[in-house]
Amino acid sequence: MNEASNRAINLAGRLASFEGHWQPRTVATFNGHDIMVVKIKGAFTWHSHDDTDDLFLVLHGRIRIELRDGDVELGPGELFVVPRDAEHRPVADEEAHVLLIERTGTPNTGDPATAAKRSVI
Amino acid sequence: MNEASNRAINLAGRLASFEGHWQPRTVATFNGHDIMVVKIKGAFTWHSHDDTDDLFLVLHGRIRIELRDGDVELGPGELFVVPRDAEHRPVADEEAHVLLIERTGTPNTGDPATAAKRSVI
Repeated sequence: MNEASNRAINLAGRLASFEGHWQPRTVATFNGHDIMVVKIKGAFTWHSHDDTDDLFLVLHGRIRIELRDGDVELGPGELFVVPRDAEHRPVADEEAHVLLIERTGTPNTGDPATAAKRSVI
Repeated sequence: MNEASNRAINLAGRLASFEGHWQPRTVATFNGHDIMVVKIKGAFTWHSHDDTDDLFLVLHGRIRIELRDGDVELGPGELFVVPRDAEHRPVADEEAHVLLIERTGTPNTGDPATAAKRSVI
């Protein structure tokens, strides 16, 4: 991580450094949270987090966050906070790039057994 | 705030809705933090926060975060986390737009006596 070295974190550059969908990479930490970038395509699993809100900011492409009480459509420069406990399913018809913030240690699927391993870049 | 109504928060749209520099507007809340947008121009005061990291993500323009041990230059799509207790001074030669995340209640100047009033849009 680059905070200590006083260098800017270029999000597009970090996104260009890896492949694979639904595999968030942590680019910085902030008050016990992971600041992550993730490439998404297709439909994720329905899940919720009982101890953290879930912040999505679209950097590239478009996504839809399906919620039990309605969908949220997001394009570049748009954000949405999924409240803790709210069941949700992110979907992207085409590949999209997202800045994601969750408490460090949050399983991305809501279930440690199926979650992506934490990866810091 | 729009979380409850399941609507995307368009950052450029929110930024277009107000004038004035160094007056952050809260567009969402997240795990006890304010997600803010702010227009900055010129040099702010040197300050630090003893209870929160300070996340800057540049949305438009360029900024420099001066730190006691070196400066960080940031353009669009670049972020930096100022660690708690680190003295810093944000500077923008031309107007820049920034996404800022701090714990709710953090005085933007580091001092409640001189801080901007919390404003939710």
